[in-house]
This record gives sequence, C-alpha cells and structure tokens, in this order.
Amino acid sequence: MGKLLDGINGPQDLKNFSMGQLEKLAGEIRELLIHTVSANGGHLAPNLGVVELTLALHKAFDSPKDKFIWDVGHQAYVHKILTGRRETFSTLRKTGGISGFPKRCESQHDAFGAGHSSTSISSALGIALARDISGDKYNVIGVIGDGSLTGGQAYEALNHAGHLGINLTVILNDNEMSIAKNVGAMSEYLAKMRTAPTYSKVKHDLEYLLRRIPAIGDTVAKTAERVKDSLKYLLVPGMLFEELGFTYFGPIDGHNIPSILDVLDKTKSVQGPVLIHLLTQKGKGYTPAECNPDKFHGVNPFCIETGEVIKTEGAPSYTQVFGDTLVKLAEQNPNIVAITAAMPEGTGLKKFCAKYPKRFFDVGIAEQHAVTLAAGMATQGKRPVVAIYSTFMQRGYDQILHDVCLQNLPVIFMLDRAGIVGEDGATHHGVFDYSFLRHIPNMVVMAPKDEDELQHMLYTATKLNEPVAIRYPRGNGLGVELKQEFTRLEIGKAEELQPGKDVVFLAVGTMVETCRSAARLLAEKGIAASVVNARFVKPLDGQAIRQLARDIGIIVTVEDNVLAGGFGSAVLEYINSQNLNWVKVLRLGLPDKYIEHGPRSYLLTQYGLDSQGITTSVEAFVRQFGAKK
Amino acid sequence: MGKLLDGINGPQDLKNFSMGQLEKLAGEIRELLIHTVSANGGHLAPNLGVVELTLALHKAFDSPKDKFIWDVGHQAYVHKILTGRRETFSTLRKTGGISGFPKRCESQHDAFGAGHSSTSISSALGIALARDISGDKYNVIGVIGDGSLTGGQAYEALNHAGHLGINLTVILNDNEMSIAKNVGAMSEYLAKMRTAPTYSKVKHDLEYLLRRIPAIGDTVAKTAERVKDSLKYLLVPGMLFEELGFTYFGPIDGHNIPSILDVLDKTKSVQGPVLIHLLTQKGKGYTPAECNPDKFHGVNPFCIETGEVIKTEGAPSYTQVFGDTLVKLAEQNPNIVAITAAMPEGTGLKKFCAKYPKRFFDVGIAEQHAVTLAAGMATQGKRPVVAIYSTFMQRGYDQILHDVCLQNLPVIFMLDRAGIVGEDGATHHGVFDYSFLRHIPNMVVMAPKDEDELQHMLYTATKLNEPVAIRYPRGNGLGVELKQEFTRLEIGKAEELQPGKDVVFLAVGTMVETCRSAARLLAEKGIAASVVNARFVKPLDGQAIRQLARDIGIIVTVEDNVLAGGFGSAVLEYINSQNLNWVKVLRLGLPDKYIEHGPRSYLLTQYGLDSQGITTSVEAFVRQFGAKK
Repeated sequence: MGKLLDGINGPQDLKNFSMGQLEKLAGEIRELLIHTVSANGGHLAPNLGVVELTLALHKAFDSPKDKFIWDVGHQAYVHKILTGRRETFSTLRKTGGISGFPKRCESQHDAFGAGHSSTSISSALGIALARDISGDKYNVIGVIGDGSLTGGQAYEALNHAGHLGINLTVILNDNEMSIAKNVGAMSEYLAKMRTAPTYSKVKHDLEYLLRRIPAIGDTVAKTAERVKDSLKYLLVPGMLFEELGFTYFGPIDGHNIPSILDVLDKTKSVQGPVLIHLLTQKGKGYTPAECNPDKFHGVNPFCIETGEVIKTEGAPSYTQVFGDTLVKLAEQNPNIVAITAAMPEGTGLKKFCAKYPKRFFDVGIAEQHAVTLAAGMATQGKRPVVAIYSTFMQRGYDQILHDVCLQNLPVIFMLDRAGIVGEDGATHHGVFDYSFLRHIPNMVVMAPKDEDELQHMLYTATKLNEPVAIRYPRGNGLGVELKQEFTRLEIGKAEELQPGKDVVFLAVGTMVETCRSAARLLAEKGIAASVVNARFVKPLDGQAIRQLARDIGIIVTVEDNVLAGGFGSAVLEYINSQNLNWVKVLRLGLPDKYIEHGPRSYLLTQYGLDSQGITTSVEAFVRQFGAKK
Repeated sequence: MGKLLDGINGPQDLKNFSMGQLEKLAGEIRELLIHTVSANGGHLAPNLGVVELTLALHKAFDSPKDKFIWDVGHQAYVHKILTGRRETFSTLRKTGGISGFPKRCESQHDAFGAGHSSTSISSALGIALARDISGDKYNVIGVIGDGSLTGGQAYEALNHAGHLGINLTVILNDNEMSIAKNVGAMSEYLAKMRTAPTYSKVKHDLEYLLRRIPAIGDTVAKTAERVKDSLKYLLVPGMLFEELGFTYFGPIDGHNIPSILDVLDKTKSVQGPVLIHLLTQKGKGYTPAECNPDKFHGVNPFCIETGEVIKTEGAPSYTQVFGDTLVKLAEQNPNIVAITAAMPEGTGLKKFCAKYPKRFFDVGIAEQHAVTLAAGMATQGKRPVVAIYSTFMQRGYDQILHDVCLQNLPVIFMLDRAGIVGEDGATHHGVFDYSFLRHIPNMVVMAPKDEDELQHMLYTATKLNEPVAIRYPRGNGLGVELKQEFTRLEIGKAEELQPGKDVVFLAVGTMVETCRSAARLLAEKGIAASVVNARFVKPLDGQAIRQLARDIGIIVTVEDNVLAGGFGSAVLEYINSQNLNWVKVLRLGLPDKYIEHGPRSYLLTQYGLDSQGITTSVEAFVRQFGAKK
C-alpha cells in the first residue's frame, strides 16, 4: 500500500482525510522526520511533538489565507512537509536547500520568519491588526512553546493583545521544556494547571453546598449569588491568561487529533483573543528522543536504531573548554557565578551547575533579565559569567550598554556560536557581535585564536574590574595543548605569531589559524606574510599597529564578522586617528547582507574567508600596493 | 519655627520622627521638589507621588545596608534629598550637579543606576542572590511603577524571582500611569484590583453561608473544606502575582505613612518574594500636576503659581514637525499606521492618535514588542511608523535585526531625542544609534539637517520598500520654511550646500548647520570650506565621496554620535574599500565614554562639537595636512 504522505503536495490534500487517515499520516510524517534529521541533523524532538497539532491546524484552517506563526520556528518541519516542501525535505539545512526555520521567501505558507524566541505573539498580533484595519477576514494563529513564554516579549504581546480584545489564537505548546527543562514560576503555574481540579468540579462542589442552605431571606440569597459570581470568575483554569484578557481553553491532549480539532472548532466562534493550552511530549514517537528530549532538541546526524549521535573525532569544543575552565576558576574564586538563558547544555555549563548548584542560574529564555541580573550581582562583589550565544546576546544589547557598561561593572559575557554557525542559517549566525559591542564604552572585547587561549582569556577576565566579552565559535577547537597553568594576558596587547616583511595579517579569533595557513600559501608565491593575533577587538593594540604600519605598511585585517563597524573598521579608525595615512589596509570579513545556511566551511569559502580565498585576495592586494611602499 | 527638613542630612535623622513629624516633613519635601523642579526642570509628578513611600522606606529600613532600587529612577529625588543630597539638590540636572537619576558614583545610597524602564526587579534579584550566596543579611527592595510593569524584562524577573522563592520585596507603585495613561491588560487587571472585594470580605461571605448549612455528615463537611481551601487560595487579590510565586499585599494607600509602615513591617517576616501593591497619585500635593500628571511627568521650568511652563520662543520642534507630517501623509496613504511605546505625547503622535485612533497603537513600555508588531503589520502591506526615542530603541536592537531587516520589511523607525539630549544625561543620550543601526543589512539610515528635511525624509521613507531609520534631535528646529510639497529624496545621495576648495565638511543631522557656521568662521581665517549634507549614514553617497576625495582631498566628517562604529567610521570604510588612500579624513564626534548630564549646548562645546570647536579642530588639521595635497 502506498503512503498517504506521497499524495500530500499542499494542505488541501489532507482536507478530506478521516481521523484514521490523519493518524496514519502522522506516523508517516514521524518516519520522514526521523529519517531526514538522522541524516542531515536538525531539530528533531520539537517537531515530533507537534505532528498532530500541525495536521489539525492544516485540517481546520486554510493556509496561506489563514496565517500560522511558529515561535522560534524550529518546530515548523511538519508544516513545511505539508505545504509543498515534502519532496525537497531531504535538502533540509543543506546548501541551497530548505531552511530549518520558517522563511517568508521560501514559501507563502511561512507567514513570518523566526529563529529567536518569543516573537510569535507580537508578529501574529501585528498581522491580525493589519487584517482588521483592512477589513479582511482570516484567522491568525501563533504557536508558542512554554519555554518561549519565559521571554519577556511574549508577555509584552499578551498584555497588548488582551487589552485590544482582538481575534487571535495563541496555541501554547506545553511540553514542560524550553530547550532544557523549563524553569520559572510560569512553568510551575502551568504544571499546576495540568493537575488542578477543573472548574466544573469545583463549581459542582459549591452548588452541592449551596443547595444545602435553607432558603431564608434576601441576605443569604444575595451573598450566595455574590460568592457564586466570584467563583465562576476565579475558578476557571488558566486564570492568569484570563486576567490578561484571553479566553483560556485547556489543558488538552496535544497528540489527540480529534481533541485538537474540537477545540479549534470551538474557538472559531469566540470573540477576542484565545489561548489554547496543549499538552505535548517533546520527541513523541521516537523512543530515544522521548527519553532524552534535551539531546534530541537540536541534534547532529545520528543512528536511527541506537539513537547514538555519529561522532566526528576531534579536539574538545570551545564550549567544553569554557565549561571546564570555569569550573577550575570557580574552585579558587567563590565569587564566580554563572548565568545561562535556558541553555545549560549548549553553553557548556552543565558541569558548573552540577558542582556549584547554588552559584548557577538558569533564568529561562530571558537574555535581558540575565544581563541585568548579572549587573546586580556584580555590584555586590560577585563575578557573574553570562554565557549566551552571540546571536541571542543581541537581545541584551541595551542591558549591556545601560546596566553593565555605564556602571562599569565586572560582568563577563561568553558569546558562544560566534561567527558563521552553519546549518542554522541567517537567524543564528553570530556575525554582528564585534559591531554591536565595540562601540560600547568601558567594554573589553576579546576572541581567542584557539581553545587554549580561551582558557587564558576567561582567566584574565576574572581578574579585571570591568565588563568583558569573549566570543568564540561553534565546534571543535584546533586540538592544541591545553596549558595547565593559566596566564593573565595583558589587556589590549596583540601577539605576533610569525614575522614576514611583505604584508601582515592582523587577524582575530578563528581567523588567526586560517591566516597562518594563508601565510604558508603566500610564501609559496614569494610573499612573506607576518601573522599577528589581535586577541583584542577593544582596546586595540595601538602600539603594535603603529609598529606594523611602520615596518610593513600593508595590513590585512581578517574577521568572521560583518565588515560594517567590525574589527577592521576599528583598525581603520585607529589608523585614521593616528594619521598613519601611508598604510594600506585590506579588510576581509563578511559583507553587508544576511548569510544563508550551509556548512560552516562551505560558507567561509563562499565569502572568501578560507585560507585559499584569503590568499587570493591578499596576493592581488600586495601585487597592487606592495610595490608602492 | 525651623523646618524639619533642615535637620535631615541622612536617613538616620528621621528615624525617631513621629507620624506627625513625618507628615510635616512630607509637606516640606514637596515644597522643595516643586521649588527646585520649577527652576531646573525635571521629573516632578513621579516624585510628588512617592514622598510618603520614600519616607516610609527610610524609616523602616537602613540604607545603604538595605538596598533600594528605583525603576527608571526618575522618582528618586526624594530619596536623594533624604540621603545627604538635600543641600546640593538645587544643582539637580545642572552641569556638575546631581543627576536626575540614581547613580552609583554619586552616593552609596544609590544601589543601582537606572534611566531605562523595567530593570529594577532584575537588578534587585541579582543583589538579593549575591547577598544569599555570601550569607549576608539585609533587605532588598525594588520599586517599580505600573507602567514599567508593561516591559517584558520585569516579567522575566518576576518569573525568575517567584521560581527561586528568594527574600525580596517588590513595591508596585500603581498610579495608573506610565508616562501617559497606562495601557495593557495588566493595567486593567490592576484597576480591577483597586475595586475588587477584598479577600476578607469574600471569606466572610462564604463563612456566613457555610454556617447556614446544617451539619449532615462527612461528604458535606469535606466538600465545604475543599471549597474553603480553593477559595482561600483563589480569592486573594493579586492572584496573578501569587501565581508567579509572590506573596501579595495590597492594595494599600500609598500616601498614608502609617499604612505603608504597617505593611513593610508585616512583610519583614514573610519568607520568599513579596509584592506590595501601593496606590499613589502622580503629582500629589501640587494641583496643576495632579490635574495634568502627563504634562508634569518630565517638565521644563515652570511658574509655580500658574503651573505654566516657561516657554522659550522658537521654531517648531522636530517632534512636532514629525507629528504633523505623519498626519498629512496618513491622509493620502491609508496603510500608514503609527506605534509608540508609552510616549504618545513625547513622540509627537497625539494628533495622529486623535485623527486616526484605529491606526494608532500604544503598546506600553514594550519596545521589543513594538518592533516585531510592526514587522507583522508590514507583512500585510501596512506601513508602520515606529516612533521611539533613540536611547530606548536600543531595547529593540535584536528585533530590528532579526524580525524587520532580515525579512527586509518596510518598517519606518523614527528615533527622536537622538544625539545629546542634555539634562537627562548618560542614560538618555541617543549617541549610539548610527553605530548600532548601520551594520544591520538592508537598513537605510538617514538624519535631517533641519525640520523641513525631516518632512521629506519621512515622505521618502513611506515610498520605499525596505526598513528605514530616521534620527533627529530633541528640541526646536532651525526655523526654516516648511515646504508644503513633499520631495522624494534620492536614496544614498548627499547634498552639496556650499562649495569650498580647501576642505569639505561631510556632516550629518544637526551637525550640518553647525558646520555651516564653522565654515563661516574658517572663511575668516582664509580657509574655504565646502559643506555637504550627507543625509544618509547608510547607504553612503559613494559617488560624492569619490568626487570630494578627488577635488578637495581633505574630508571632515561630523556627527553627534560616538565615533566608534559611527558615521565617520562608515566613511573610512568606504574610502578604504575604494583605495582612496590619498584622502585625509578628520572624524569629529563623541569620544568612547558615557556623556554626563548638562545643557545640550554646553556638552556640545565640551566635546568640541560647536562651531568654534569644530573650527579649531579643522583649522589645525588643514594647516597640518592641507599643504601636502
């Protein structure tokens, strides 16, 4: 018998399916998800959790007329499969293939792009308001996880939507997880709702009691009425959402298609915003993911039978080195505390958390709060280490500027996944951090050339009395020896790695090693390139730059950040401020555009940031300007 | 009889005051507030609202051991007066005088600096956690207004604090206002609480009823018990806060010192976080401010008797011109909608709101939501105009980058109060916007040279199909003629205002006019300066820069933004990318530090950005480099 899925080329193809067929289809979709993600890597557990929900949405509503907005968007695979992308699903996260996140330019069914958390209610509300202003008629449905609900923006949007009383459906996909186990009072509130006595039960209790009161006059009757009114109002589950102006439905089994269809149907006639509380299981239908939803949230290629991730041999990752180093430093310094925004595993803080649970804080997906919390701690002598991916740190920009740096507080920001992150694509590349950090007064910005230097940078940061950001890439280190002794680096001091008279690489972070390779290639072409590890994007090593300007006269800055406002831009500013006008500067880095998804090495090559690309650029530059020196 | 206030040099001096004395002191403080703010300008209404609260806090707790954290901080004047700054209070907001906001470097009683909204619970929680880790004993009290509670970060922090169950007091200063009338579902919730039957009342009702049930067996008794338990839990006012893990006290009259002291005393023995809901009146005790708290929120010098603001004659403000222009444009373009984050008045949107209430959205102090909401609207063909002060737009950095620009949606950002804002100081200067906006792909960044150009820029922005930011200063325009016809400006095209062979000013925004003055001064010194209005920080006018490089060879960039990553930095990048190495560039702008408070003109002079300062810098530069051309 053929697969039902083979006939699904758009949502219209499942409209007439029976419940039994939808359930069969759910199974087939799960197979495809597991198959594809086991090969390509990606977000498995979140998608396994929303198969029934997505089927029900496409059965009950008409995309693209009706708009579905997926918060974060890592759970939109099923939606993609059902909306004309079944056949191309095998290209998921591959170069030129379909994105792992909703993308407006990819399909008219992707109503709003996402990648960062807690934006869906805002964007859904914007769409719904536009609809009403234009007098159009369609449904707008935002799907948000309980994890995303810890982000303040979600609350800002709930507060606004509840106030407006607009027609809008928010589906709370409650799996008790954000990426890791969800935290926060809201999460506990949701847990309580799962087991709370229902409204009808308590109402029944009360009516039972009131019937037992002999009818004796007005006062009693009035009082009884008043109490009943209070109860009716107060005993509705989801009170908190009701208080914010939403009509609450739930909790509902999110893997039962008839139940979901039933509630979707009910809500269609409700005026004003609706919140549907769906209980789902992350990883549903694939045992290894059910048992370990955290591991299978975002996962590298794995063996379907065993659930074992296919390990690529290699050096310890930067993440690991950071985690290990922090534990060592914390042994000696009781003031060190660590903060993560829902990513204890991804940021490498698991060991720290296990060893120093009282000095470890997972604040939920709440980067703004994480930064100001750290500032508060720093005023009392603590050394907070805030570990947040580069791209998500964008959320804390104002707090870094206004709460930490303005008060010159010694908070340490660890920006993992900086530079090109690869398959997660445009929403996740950490290629703006030099640009958004280096113009903030009092900030020290560093990037290590390898995993060993990361140790010493972190050690150095703990010795400083000012804000520091250290940014480093996803993935394995270079495999260099990890020194047992920490070295305190001199602030704003670059490191010359090799001499060369024709041109100098002034590189930062992972680009340092690439430049060493490029220098070897250039040597073969008769060009002697010096390589300097800048270490600091701020403050720059002015003395070194002046020296290099004088001695070599051709400087090539290399960074895996956008060129606009980045490291090379800082070098230009310095050279300009010192009137070193004779220096020729070539700035290599990323262009003024959003970088697509694809393998990290492929993208670096694409943008001329592999050793070959760098060699080509530098050779041309030296041929053009070298003679004039 | 002498004033009680004269004897107050620190909080210890009011410890033994009787209630009567505290009330007398409150009156004296109000007098001082009105007197000082009428002369210096500042935040009057918020401070008049917290006189009793601040007195009670200093009576009940011991600052600086106990920590008070003021959200936004514009209500900390009374606290300053009581903590050793009574005598210097006359220097409020003046050059070298005391700041209008809490500032750690100003006093040990200012536990945490502020200026932006919704940070107090985060920082207070950070301090409380640090205290517990260190095993210290003191109280931490965060004071937050109901307006600030619309900011998502406040919710992130409540969610975290409630989860931790830590000892922390949050005082909700509920005056039904943010800056303007507060909005949002939370605000309605608070209003309901003001009038809700109290817990004790409903409990009394219920007990009255239950007494009337004849005692007939276990079932009834058990059911009654169960209902009572539910009620006890559910009928507590402030349920929403209770659900988030806080113990709620209130609502309490915030102008009754004994009541406040009583509740502060009660809460001292409560384990876990506490929320005290205080009802206050913004502007309390000064009739004009009571009647018009919005106007007296932040106010210029005024006449105490009449409450009339002392008007300085002048051209219409940029804010006004923006507001008027938007109304005109909206007449012709029904897709234009406007969004403000709690500042309908300050951003100039009052007229728009009155004329197009259905196209106007005040989202509360929720910049993140404002930006993504606009993105959602833009996907459906609307032209959202998001008017937020430059400094507060920092909160929306990630949303601009991730939700608007990545999807290249035509959202228009109007950044008022850009550059040096003056007396509000370091937390409010809008001097980072060029730097945090220009590295974002797809973004167009403009700044008008005068109020007329502002009109044409806004008009132009509505014609584009991409994101645009327009930034302009606080205060009056230049008094130029406001053209009746709008002109569509060519994107990325500068405007030559006057020729000159020796040097060229490439200036942007308000600095253009200053450079024209400087050019006149330079002419007297025999230096012929050309003046070019850059108009665009992004995209730059490359053709013009190449031409100027060729024809004049000395370019002076001038901006009221930090130099790091700013406009001049962009010009350097362009010159570098084009290998125009012979050009001499002098970049004038703000240094890499936070700018203090003081009059705008004073600060501009201080940083060499008045016409005299610019002239001096340019003369020296031309004398040094002009000859070499």
